[in-house]
Amino acid sequence: MQKVLVLNGPNLNLLGKREPSIYGTETLEELHCRLQKKGEQLGLEVQCFQSNHEGELIDRIHWANEHVDVLVINAGAFTHYSYAIRDALAAVSVPSIEVHMSNVHSREAFRKTSVIAPVTQGQITGFGFISYELALVAAASLSKEKR
Amino acid sequence: MQKVLVLNGPNLNLLGKREPSIYGTETLEELHCRLQKKGEQLGLEVQCFQSNHEGELIDRIHWANEHVDVLVINAGAFTHYSYAIRDALAAVSVPSIEVHMSNVHSREAFRKTSVIAPVTQGQITGFGFISYELALVAAASLSKEKR
Amino acid sequence: MQKVLVLNGPNLNLLGKREPSIYGTETLEELHCRLQKKGEQLGLEVQCFQSNHEGELIDRIHWANEHVDVLVINAGAFTHYSYAIRDALAAVSVPSIEVHMSNVHSREAFRKTSVIAPVTQGQITGFGFISYELALVAAASLSKEKR
Amino acid sequence: MQKVLVLNGPNLNLLGKREPSIYGTETLEELHCRLQKKGEQLGLEVQCFQSNHEGELIDRIHWANEHVDVLVINAGAFTHYSYAIRDALAAVSVPSIEVHMSNVHSREAFRKTSVIAPVTQGQITGFGFISYELALVAAASLSKEKR
Amino acid sequence: MQKVLVLNGPNLNLLGKREPSIYGTETLEELHCRLQKKGEQLGLEVQCFQSNHEGELIDRIHWANEHVDVLVINAGAFTHYSYAIRDALAAVSVPSIEVHMSNVHSREAFRKTSVIAPVTQGQITGFGFISYELALVAAASLSKEKR
Amino acid sequence: MQKVLVLNGPNLNLLGKREPSIYGTETLEELHCRLQKKGEQLGLEVQCFQSNHEGELIDRIHWANEHVDVLVINAGAFTHYSYAIRDALAAVSVPSIEVHMSNVHSREAFRKTSVIAPVTQGQITGFGFISYELALVAAASLSKEKR
Amino acid sequence: MQKVLVLNGPNLNLLGKREPSIYGTETLEELHCRLQKKGEQLGLEVQCFQSNHEGELIDRIHWANEHVDVLVINAGAFTHYSYAIRDALAAVSVPSIEVHMSNVHSREAFRKTSVIAPVTQGQITGFGFISYELALVAAASLSKEKR
Amino acid sequence: MQKVLVLNGPNLNLLGKREPSIYGTETLEELHCRLQKKGEQLGLEVQCFQSNHEGELIDRIHWANEHVDVLVINAGAFTHYSYAIRDALAAVSVPSIEVHMSNVHSREAFRKTSVIAPVTQGQITGFGFISYELALVAAASLSKEKR
Amino acid sequence: MQKVLVLNGPNLNLLGKREPSIYGTETLEELHCRLQKKGEQLGLEVQCFQSNHEGELIDRIHWANEHVDVLVINAGAFTHYSYAIRDALAAVSVPSIEVHMSNVHSREAFRKTSVIAPVTQGQITGFGFISYELALVAAASLSKEKR
Amino acid sequence: MQKVLVLNGPNLNLLGKREPSIYGTETLEELHCRLQKKGEQLGLEVQCFQSNHEGELIDRIHWANEHVDVLVINAGAFTHYSYAIRDALAAVSVPSIEVHMSNVHSREAFRKTSVIAPVTQGQITGFGFISYELALVAAASLSKEKR
Amino acid sequence: MQKVLVLNGPNLNLLGKREPSIYGTETLEELHCRLQKKGEQLGLEVQCFQSNHEGELIDRIHWANEHVDVLVINAGAFTHYSYAIRDALAAVSVPSIEVHMSNVHSREAFRKTSVIAPVTQGQITGFGFISYELALVAAASLSKEKR
Amino acid sequence: MQKVLVLNGPNLNLLGKREPSIYGTETLEELHCRLQKKGEQLGLEVQCFQSNHEGELIDRIHWANEHVDVLVINAGAFTHYSYAIRDALAAVSVPSIEVHMSNVHSREAFRKTSVIAPVTQGQITGFGFISYELALVAAASLSKEKR
Repeated sequence: MQKVLVLNGPNLNLLGKREPSIYGTETLEELHCRLQKKGEQLGLEVQCFQSNHEGELIDRIHWANEHVDVLVINAGAFTHYSYAIRDALAAVSVPSIEVHMSNVHSREAFRKTSVIAPVTQGQITGFGFISYELALVAAASLSKEKR
Repeated sequence: MQKVLVLNGPNLNLLGKREPSIYGTETLEELHCRLQKKGEQLGLEVQCFQSNHEGELIDRIHWANEHVDVLVINAGAFTHYSYAIRDALAAVSVPSIEVHMSNVHSREAFRKTSVIAPVTQGQITGFGFISYELALVAAASLSKEKR
Repeated sequence: MQKVLVLNGPNLNLLGKREPSIYGTETLEELHCRLQKKGEQLGLEVQCFQSNHEGELIDRIHWANEHVDVLVINAGAFTHYSYAIRDALAAVSVPSIEVHMSNVHSREAFRKTSVIAPVTQGQITGFGFISYELALVAAASLSKEKR
Repeated sequence: MQKVLVLNGPNLNLLGKREPSIYGTETLEELHCRLQKKGEQLGLEVQCFQSNHEGELIDRIHWANEHVDVLVINAGAFTHYSYAIRDALAAVSVPSIEVHMSNVHSREAFRKTSVIAPVTQGQITGFGFISYELALVAAASLSKEKR
Repeated sequence: MQKVLVLNGPNLNLLGKREPSIYGTETLEELHCRLQKKGEQLGLEVQCFQSNHEGELIDRIHWANEHVDVLVINAGAFTHYSYAIRDALAAVSVPSIEVHMSNVHSREAFRKTSVIAPVTQGQITGFGFISYELALVAAASLSKEKR
Repeated sequence: MQKVLVLNGPNLNLLGKREPSIYGTETLEELHCRLQKKGEQLGLEVQCFQSNHEGELIDRIHWANEHVDVLVINAGAFTHYSYAIRDALAAVSVPSIEVHMSNVHSREAFRKTSVIAPVTQGQITGFGFISYELALVAAASLSKEKR
Repeated sequence: MQKVLVLNGPNLNLLGKREPSIYGTETLEELHCRLQKKGEQLGLEVQCFQSNHEGELIDRIHWANEHVDVLVINAGAFTHYSYAIRDALAAVSVPSIEVHMSNVHSREAFRKTSVIAPVTQGQITGFGFISYELALVAAASLSKEKR
Repeated sequence: MQKVLVLNGPNLNLLGKREPSIYGTETLEELHCRLQKKGEQLGLEVQCFQSNHEGELIDRIHWANEHVDVLVINAGAFTHYSYAIRDALAAVSVPSIEVHMSNVHSREAFRKTSVIAPVTQGQITGFGFISYELALVAAASLSKEKR
Repeated sequence: MQKVLVLNGPNLNLLGKREPSIYGTETLEELHCRLQKKGEQLGLEVQCFQSNHEGELIDRIHWANEHVDVLVINAGAFTHYSYAIRDALAAVSVPSIEVHMSNVHSREAFRKTSVIAPVTQGQITGFGFISYELALVAAASLSKEKR
Repeated sequence: MQKVLVLNGPNLNLLGKREPSIYGTETLEELHCRLQKKGEQLGLEVQCFQSNHEGELIDRIHWANEHVDVLVINAGAFTHYSYAIRDALAAVSVPSIEVHMSNVHSREAFRKTSVIAPVTQGQITGFGFISYELALVAAASLSKEKR
Repeated sequence: MQKVLVLNGPNLNLLGKREPSIYGTETLEELHCRLQKKGEQLGLEVQCFQSNHEGELIDRIHWANEHVDVLVINAGAFTHYSYAIRDALAAVSVPSIEVHMSNVHSREAFRKTSVIAPVTQGQITGFGFISYELALVAAASLSKEKR
Repeated sequence: MQKVLVLNGPNLNLLGKREPSIYGTETLEELHCRLQKKGEQLGLEVQCFQSNHEGELIDRIHWANEHVDVLVINAGAFTHYSYAIRDALAAVSVPSIEVHMSNVHSREAFRKTSVIAPVTQGQITGFGFISYELALVAAASLSKEKR
């Protein structure tokens, strides 16, 4: 059974608690449940991890290299400047999928630049929680096709 | 039954015929078939249209406003400069989803800019034909949630 | 009797049908009527043409060179990137007047750049349908003074 | 009877005296006469004011707020850098129309930037004295429609 | 007893009369009163001056050099381009404090640049009238510590 | 009694120990003492926290949302690139005040850009320790006026 | 016998009819004749095609892939922004040669950028009709050397 | 006898009173004396004018057109942004010479840009008071050669 | 005996495990051994520290100030954006030497910018493990010459 | 008989000796031979000169003015920054043709800028040795048409 | 008796021979004569040197350090990019004066940048041969005042 | 025995004679001696060459290709713009090491760009004469490892 690690970056622990107009009303825990269920349907074992610490995300990406088949990552604001996360994703051999809940292209200008996008497999943005679910579907396909 | 129009822009008629390293070996016809089948599974009626003419794509977007529920668009190279297609997408009330087969962020610099992204619902890039299939899944969700 | 051709570019066929907050509630047909009446008052024979196709607009500009005295053009989004339309306007000897319904300077940044402005006689922007009417008044003056 | 104030900025007092190839041979006084006559035809009471002093133009814009219905402003070279005039125009509730005699888009690059355009109602550029007359016509329409 | 001159630049004479959502409902006179009272509490003699004329502000800065101990300046829109005011502030030996009522960093892009900031002692922005009161507190400290 | 959290970012633990010409000779502990005393005068309960770790500052901002009324933040060098701290400040409902001891506008070019300023209430820069004291005065006003 | 397709883009149908100072006095038809004669001398079968429509040029490039050995293209103003034509040229396996009649480097700044140049074999600019003739000579060499 | 007007812009009234390291110890009055004496030697009648008001400098440039043969101008900080002074200099037929006391190229970056330089006859910078004297010598030559 | 701390930033713990074409086949442990041996030859006591956490690197730089004579730092991707590490290096009095294994100037554009370089003593890049050894030799010289 | 001077700039003496994948296997001497033969066919007397010294190339361009009818120049890397060679070409009355063996538009970004192109007659790039031969053909035409 | 070396850079040997509209009709030899005579009047021994070779100009600047009191330099096109000449001027202790015959600010954009200006004493531009004469006058003053 | 050529560019002949604060007090001859001694210790035969002429440096790089094993180059100011030297280094097969005595990253902005760095093996900057010695150590390693 294929394994997928879903990584969430800074401030995503506030999901459902703050700014429902942007983040919706469901919490990070509810997202994680939903993804695990969706994973079961797709034959994927889904693990979730969230941190506000860049270093912890890097550590976890390194760990992922030995333990999972696909990475799904919403790096939050780190997306726009963390070359260290980019290098981590590039250094490991596990493919990664970048997701964003909002359409980053219709928000502030700085959100249009993703320094990690060039080293990921693909990006899914703008569909709220469904962005993550689509990423799991994509992960399942990657597993089938690439591995 | 929800209706989805899949629009393909310039040079995508060459799919499967040229540059298999980028575009793969399947043709546009095979893509269209695959999407119609996938649509059936998802309870969507899928129509497909391809043109190398910017004006025809705009005409079709206008038409879509009265006839379909969701637009899936791979505007090809028009993605990077056609403000006219952007205005067309913004002017109609049908939501649109931008797809790209390749990871546009790991190719030439000019491919990082999408002038249409700010007026679409979301983007899915980097998964080959599966980008389109994910867009159909997203379209089905949009239909359920938004409408 | 002087002749004026009013050219409307992409998406302006949607006038009055979509986004009334920007485009108002009158249709392109109503605009054309209004301009013909206004033309009669000013002693001008007014013809109107709209297309979403860049090439058709270029063809029509070439045609205008032999058949009309002044061009009034709202090139829509082509305003911002169609150097081909610019070259067409520069190549013909009939003077042209650029119009926009909205104040393009108070909208998105890309709308501030007009690649055709340097080769037109003047610009009138921000007055809705009245922008076109002012252009006809200007055209009448051009006819009197220049020709 | 509607009132319009026509404001002319720096160096426009030289009209007709210098550089006839750009400014024509008519003087500022003749322009003012012409605009008053044109105003009478349109049912507008037209007042005119010129200054080479940025502060005096700002003072007059403040004054206009209580005394006129529409402002017509050719801010001359202040157009390109006077954020103070921009703020004055934005602070008052009287609508303003920006005019230029020459086609600013076909001259030096710095003339393409208008810092006041985003806070005006619209722009009319490139028709010499007729630019002002068109602005009066536009002002009359604004009076009818908006007020 | 220490002396402070509070300088207000263009359009600040409109305080309380226009745009209450930005400028509040209190007038410039009320601000001046409030600052004089606040000054008394802090043992400062507060004088106030407002002008829409760049030259008058420069003249007053020169005058201040002989007559006051600290300058508090809200240069309004001159903040963004008046290198002449910058040079005036740099040329005199009296320290100056830059204030803005609004958070200039969350408004238009051009408001982020202050050409005078590098030659002032410090900046206080975003607290409405309280910005000025904080500046007086800062002025009192400067007087105690620096002089 | 209102509560204020004073957050200090990277390298501010070195206050008073290094570079007295920039940072002065007082230590972070002395700053904290001073702020607590000043807080008492103003009727504020002041807490202080310093970290060199971006993630810890984000965690503390989240915590602040439930526990304090105003945030005072000197994000040190994170000011210039931490969009993650910006997002944290934007996500919580507690208002924040940005402070800097030095006049950031008269130092290196990169220090002129604050990515967090647009989401704070206001900024106070250039007055050394007094910058923080002014922020407490501002915080007290915010408490009175806003809450 | 080798086959060459000479493609001419927007406004080149006006050759000889307009702006003789730039375009000379010979017409497009005369150019085509001249190139066919020159082709005969070089042992090349030369076909010519002109369109003001971007989409038609793309269609013809696709067609060329099956039917000719070398493409000679003067894309007119499309040269400066049509990434769609660039992608078409890159997608087909027939080599292409970019020509311009005028020295694009001594005209407006926007004419210095060719988005298609990186995917062509080479460029010949500045020699009027002779630019095309040199391209045929180059095409003949390509045929001999490369094929 | 030829006439020269020496115009000094903002803050130059402080000469000799402030910042002797930059401005030297001689006052503006002493500069004026010196220039009048130097003028006598060269057979020039030298007049001097200083103002901190942009509008007054423009008025004086207009006046100069009728009354003097050469303008010598140190526009101070207006050099870097006053397109209104530039237009004034361009509009009059009297030739102008730009002077600066300091080497503007070795100071802050903004001082490298002179918006008036393109419309003056020449520039003399970096020689303190001697810059003005050299300008008089140049003015005498211009009178001899050009007039 | 002089002491040197060798600091390695994010992802350098993967040395020898991943991407041997860039990082070679030796591990971080082997690098540390090699440097300790090399240090012994040079009369230096070499300590090594690696972290993926920006905050830990900053803490260690502060610590170094009291405990070592020279810092050798490969900040990995933090090199390109961590102004916080830059400030830490600038705040301590121990001199630092920047090293990179690869030639950062022949890789992606973003790797050409080092925000820490201006506050270090010097840089050594492009020699793999030998970059570090050269840094130790340089450190030994610094110790002899500077201290 | 018309005379042509073929100038080759820095590093072109290495032709055929180094980097055959870019420069081919033929030497500069062989190129010179080939061009002389080609010249004979075209009725041109061809001379060749190569130097790695910018000054020698300038001297030779000056000399050419008196001795030849057309210049063919491959300025090598000087193409991208030698405004001195540009000025030399502009100062002489002999027309010049710029050639490059490789397609400079598909290599490093800095190779896209030619500072000499605006003062030459035309450019021929991307055809290896044939670029030079085409330049001779163009030179022959220039001789016939222009002289 | 003070010594002055006048250095002329590339293409200035063509003075009077080419482009009289820019360079006038007098030759470099006549300029040298004129400057020697002018020097005698001013009590200066004037030497002149011209070269098209950057290295020779650098060598001569080094030589000047031991042999002359002031350098007058018109570096021609090297002005815009020769950091090597800049470094040479900065390295020697003899002061230098930059001259240009034309008003470089009213020509091509690249001529506005002088990389040598920041290390010279001052600049004199726009007065033809008189620019050099003024430089000698300035040199005489420098000799008197500085030495 | 391995051979190393040390190339020094413009103005480095002034070492020890000028600006001791930057260049130190040792001369170029002393540097050469020191390097030869150091070379002997490392088993390297060291040759040295300095020139202020770009062309001579290029000639010597070509020569080096046949005669030495490693190039050590301090191109002085040519570092920042000589694409001709870059091309020379890229064209030869002998590896090169870039050195600078000063920390180029803490000086003027233009010194941060090295156009030759991308084609060298590595860079060593900021250690004065020791930069060169480290380069010899690196050269010795290169010889051992690479050859």
